[in-house]
Amino acid sequence: MGETQFPEVQGGGSLILAWQIRNKRVLVVGGGEVAAGRILNVLNADAKVTVVSPREGLNPEVAYRIEKGQVDYVDRKFEPSDLDNVDMVLTAVDDPEASSQIWKLCKERKIAANIADVPPECDFYFGSVHRDGPLQIMVSTNGKGPRFANIVRRSIAEQLPANTGEAITKVGKLRQMLRKVAPGIEEGPKRMAWMIKVSDAYSLEDLCAMDEKDMETLLRFYAPDQVPRYGCLKAMEGELDAFDGSFGFCVGWG
Amino acid sequence: MGETQFPEVQGGGSLILAWQIRNKRVLVVGGGEVAAGRILNVLNADAKVTVVSPREGLNPEVAYRIEKGQVDYVDRKFEPSDLDNVDMVLTAVDDPEASSQIWKLCKERKIAANIADVPPECDFYFGSVHRDGPLQIMVSTNGKGPRFANIVRRSIAEQLPANTGEAITKVGKLRQMLRKVAPGIEEGPKRMAWMIKVSDAYSLEDLCAMDEKDMETLLRFYAPDQVPRYGCLKAMEGELDAFDGSFGFCVGWG
Repeated sequence: MGETQFPEVQGGGSLILAWQIRNKRVLVVGGGEVAAGRILNVLNADAKVTVVSPREGLNPEVAYRIEKGQVDYVDRKFEPSDLDNVDMVLTAVDDPEASSQIWKLCKERKIAANIADVPPECDFYFGSVHRDGPLQIMVSTNGKGPRFANIVRRSIAEQLPANTGEAITKVGKLRQMLRKVAPGIEEGPKRMAWMIKVSDAYSLEDLCAMDEKDMETLLRFYAPDQVPRYGCLKAMEGELDAFDGSFGFCVGWG
Repeated sequence: MGETQFPEVQGGGSLILAWQIRNKRVLVVGGGEVAAGRILNVLNADAKVTVVSPREGLNPEVAYRIEKGQVDYVDRKFEPSDLDNVDMVLTAVDDPEASSQIWKLCKERKIAANIADVPPECDFYFGSVHRDGPLQIMVSTNGKGPRFANIVRRSIAEQLPANTGEAITKVGKLRQMLRKVAPGIEEGPKRMAWMIKVSDAYSLEDLCAMDEKDMETLLRFYAPDQVPRYGCLKAMEGELDAFDGSFGFCVGWG
């Protein structure tokens, strides 16, 4: 067996994960600008958030989230009992000694933690994230250039089709429509194989441009297990001007 | 204070994280195709990996990694003691009952775990990751379309400048060179502010195209706290054909 047939280990990276903290309790220690960013991060992932920070240290955004009831709030400095029943801890305070103490307590209790600005006291780092509905794209430079990560994220966001997030929802809808057209459990493998064919046949731009009518037309090709090209699909919808009369340019057309 | 000045909470996302598992112990239960992918993921992040799986269930890639000593190997089914001193658990076995049992044990011991194909029994999901040296880009559709994530990842990889990963290393090098040119601790804030100006002034394409000579020329602008445009930089390097004789198009040129 040739050694080269398997991907080589690259090393030096992080394990990039989509952490599930929906309805989990996240403790944020500190109420400054960095804390404000962390709080938004975890609220966007549907966490239940407790902020511990003396009121005089609150930045306006944190104060706003407290006032709106988006987070629970404890108006004092951190105390060890704050860690009870907590699933994740994020600290952002200008007190290295207190931070280090919190990190040690978290490790004793096996709670995942990020001590801002102290890389060795972090189970995980944050990166620069582009969000578009169900789509999340995270850029990490593994600590080598946080501002560079922002540049790359902006460049990616500019180049993606405008409605990429929406396209994910549409593909999900296509899958649902397919289940209605071909509901049988025994159809499962054929359904899955056909959806894979669809994914392979269309570019990101095609998928983003697809509308409900296109999807209905496309579903007619499930029974014969075929996937016409996007231009072909459009042509069949009566836009025959764009259609040269032959089906030769259709992918999988029998 | 207007409410609209702060970003609105979007909800429904994951918390995308760069997990640090360098030299941490990851237990992989199972030795099939999914396990092979997981193993490569964690090896790329420099984890120490133990694979538990009867030898007859090993896929060729997993067998190869065992043979090469890239992972530690236990030739039997999972036993609870396998969880001792383990920081993360990934299971990929075709046995829902055994998987569920492992998940429960992990939760009792507060070990982060991913049970393949059982979303409710996952602390985290994997996504589609593009890797280019220090750069990692992760695409997640939050479970809405894993194949769509691959399409987006491929599209991003195609559109990024070819040497984007290398450019991160170069920006890191520029930072090092700057510390030699202006080593004082008291220069810290000016150095940081100037690096931010550099990041803001250049496009991703500029940064990817920059060579060592460009960086040396650029560093001459640190003292006056300026950042010339990339075309201007090239012009000053004797490529005067491309230079129109005026410095009017230079950013921050006093």
